[in-house]
Amino acid sequence: MSASEQEAVCRVVIIGAGFGGLEAALRLGSAPVDLTVVDRHNYHLFQPLLYQVATAALSPADIAVPIRHILRDQKNTTMLLDEVVGVDPARGVVRLRTAGALPFDRLILATGSVYSYFGHDDWPRLAPGLKSLDDATWIRRRLLLAFEHAESCAAAAARQRLLTFVIIGAGPTGVEMAGALAELARAALAQDFRRINPRAARIILVEAGPQVLAGFPDKFVRFAERELTAMGVELRLNAPITVVDAEGVVADGERIASATVLWCAGVQATPVASWLGVEPAKGGRVAVTAELRVPGHPNIFVIGDAAFLTDAEGKPLPGVAPVAKQQGRYVADLIRAQIAGAPAPAPFRYRDQGALATIGRSAAVADLPHLKLTGWPGWVLWSIVHIYFLIGFRNRVSVFLSWIWAWLTYARGARLITGDDRR
Amino acid sequence: MSASEQEAVCRVVIIGAGFGGLEAALRLGSAPVDLTVVDRHNYHLFQPLLYQVATAALSPADIAVPIRHILRDQKNTTMLLDEVVGVDPARGVVRLRTAGALPFDRLILATGSVYSYFGHDDWPRLAPGLKSLDDATWIRRRLLLAFEHAESCAAAAARQRLLTFVIIGAGPTGVEMAGALAELARAALAQDFRRINPRAARIILVEAGPQVLAGFPDKFVRFAERELTAMGVELRLNAPITVVDAEGVVADGERIASATVLWCAGVQATPVASWLGVEPAKGGRVAVTAELRVPGHPNIFVIGDAAFLTDAEGKPLPGVAPVAKQQGRYVADLIRAQIAGAPAPAPFRYRDQGALATIGRSAAVADLPHLKLTGWPGWVLWSIVHIYFLIGFRNRVSVFLSWIWAWLTYARGARLITGDDRR
Repeated sequence: MSASEQEAVCRVVIIGAGFGGLEAALRLGSAPVDLTVVDRHNYHLFQPLLYQVATAALSPADIAVPIRHILRDQKNTTMLLDEVVGVDPARGVVRLRTAGALPFDRLILATGSVYSYFGHDDWPRLAPGLKSLDDATWIRRRLLLAFEHAESCAAAAARQRLLTFVIIGAGPTGVEMAGALAELARAALAQDFRRINPRAARIILVEAGPQVLAGFPDKFVRFAERELTAMGVELRLNAPITVVDAEGVVADGERIASATVLWCAGVQATPVASWLGVEPAKGGRVAVTAELRVPGHPNIFVIGDAAFLTDAEGKPLPGVAPVAKQQGRYVADLIRAQIAGAPAPAPFRYRDQGALATIGRSAAVADLPHLKLTGWPGWVLWSIVHIYFLIGFRNRVSVFLSWIWAWLTYARGARLITGDDRR
Repeated sequence: MSASEQEAVCRVVIIGAGFGGLEAALRLGSAPVDLTVVDRHNYHLFQPLLYQVATAALSPADIAVPIRHILRDQKNTTMLLDEVVGVDPARGVVRLRTAGALPFDRLILATGSVYSYFGHDDWPRLAPGLKSLDDATWIRRRLLLAFEHAESCAAAAARQRLLTFVIIGAGPTGVEMAGALAELARAALAQDFRRINPRAARIILVEAGPQVLAGFPDKFVRFAERELTAMGVELRLNAPITVVDAEGVVADGERIASATVLWCAGVQATPVASWLGVEPAKGGRVAVTAELRVPGHPNIFVIGDAAFLTDAEGKPLPGVAPVAKQQGRYVADLIRAQIAGAPAPAPFRYRDQGALATIGRSAAVADLPHLKLTGWPGWVLWSIVHIYFLIGFRNRVSVFLSWIWAWLTYARGARLITGDDRR
């Protein structure tokens, strides 16, 4: 660190207030820095519960909190609602769409990932993915409208197509989505129609690989497959999708007529690599050093889904919230140490705290270091963990009450068709 | 009633599931009729609290319930999400956009009102009104974005324009909106910005007439004007709006630069009169008989905001929820009596239960037959009445908790910028 930098207040810029960026911002709140947090949205989103907004169980405000509200007591912090259009590492400047050039001494890029459609540019419109609140209310609109249109529809084939739902990708999000959709059709909507039987809706979970929940222990995979089947979800394994069009999909050579196709398959990083002018690693990520720095740019850090780093065994770290949060904390501590003139912390090491996935009403799998749970105990643990990590007291209460209420009544409180058909 | 009609089950169609249409539908749930309820939205909206969604205090799901969920236990009732494109009174058919021709023996038109812009076709886009959930989330987006853009804005004049809010029309909705917006700026957002001071936002309530809350007793008008002024709302009375454009408005000859203009002024009925081919009465309403029938079409009823009827003193009935509900109940009872061969009920008479309006945190006016309240007691009564009339147990609990929480913390739980700039 140069003498001049030590004199001026260190300007830290964080791009993205997801799990990683927000953790770093909170950790730097009491540091002697001038901190600016930039996000495209005005809210921090608790993404693990986004599928519950898409399936009408929770309201958007239950899982999203204004970023500036979270950071309001940090006097050293400014929040800007803006979008990054480029980074100039040599000049130490981030270019924003509205506010223009934003200079930095340290830059933390925590911009996350977007769904990857493997180069099919028309698929995102046909098979929306679930990343933002607008995605969720759009998918909720599509799901609920499919039932409404089926009720008004006289032709049997068209009605069957409206009542066929295809979910592509059987990772945790796809499994959770399929379970929640099955519950919506079989329980919440069951009594509400006269001409159609929502229970007869087909929910098809399509996976290119040989199993659901790739990466989870075998016992859990078998449990999840059994539970999904019991809930009436049709599993299509080893069935890569080759066509998505206005009629439906082609999976493993078989055409499935469906009016509602959802994408829960692969993700790729946001264009951080191209902003920095570096060669992207796997999934468009930026390969970082063990200190989470961009090679050649020691004052630029990339964390979370946008970063590529391997663990001690050479396995890439997964794109999950705990990795992003631990990395956010690490970088914040590293910057604080630098400013204090303290020795740099040891290289980043991810502490795996396990994984959780839920399948529906009282069935979940928990794969923790010292605890493996399935079924009802797994679901209770899943609920506690998710409510615990929700930011903001009010959201916790609201989500807790919504769950209790949904549990007792099978009803879905947020079954609203809003917005319009444009996208 | 003809012999053939008595043999077949009477087909009743209700268009619109607002306060009037829903009341009629619930009242006909146990009648020996074949009932179809048609609405453009899948939800019944508790419109009196819509301004709280627009000002980020409540979530859309707090004040809206799926219509088919409310009617799910009525085995004689079908709900269709559809839009009316015309009525053929002679053939006894309603034409729907999706489902086509829908025959009826009795038709209840309860389609409500829309904002009237007095022939200015470009004003709705510039100064949105507050009628649907999408209006409310759109206005919420505009309000919150104005503060966000001001925070990013370097030019003082542009920033001042972004922090100037104009509300046109000082009826109950305009007064409630101005009060809620003042609280949003002065309390909820006060700590959250670094470059602007939200407390310095100007909130200007413009009214063409000589006072706020026209129709309320003088004492209340003075109370409301005093409270609004104390909250920092600028009142412009006797100030008709002559221009609404991209820069702001011209009120009583004075130009006000504002980025956010909201319309809470006059309403007009939906195009029921043109569907029926009758001459519209005042405000585009359909003049009805004392039995709420359309003259010349005894099997067609118009109720609520779409109907024009005068009371015993010749004063037109106001476009408020109690009128619509009482009329819905009256028509349902009349149809039940007809089917049972019982004598027709006496002509409709509106029982005025008074009026309520709130100005903000613990200030409201209540003008009831035997009770006049202002201030804190008025606010408590206002809260109880509104929660009591909210449909659905869960919503009542959720709204109650939101209010308690907002009251204790001054926070707004639903400060989310969603959607996009298109409209």
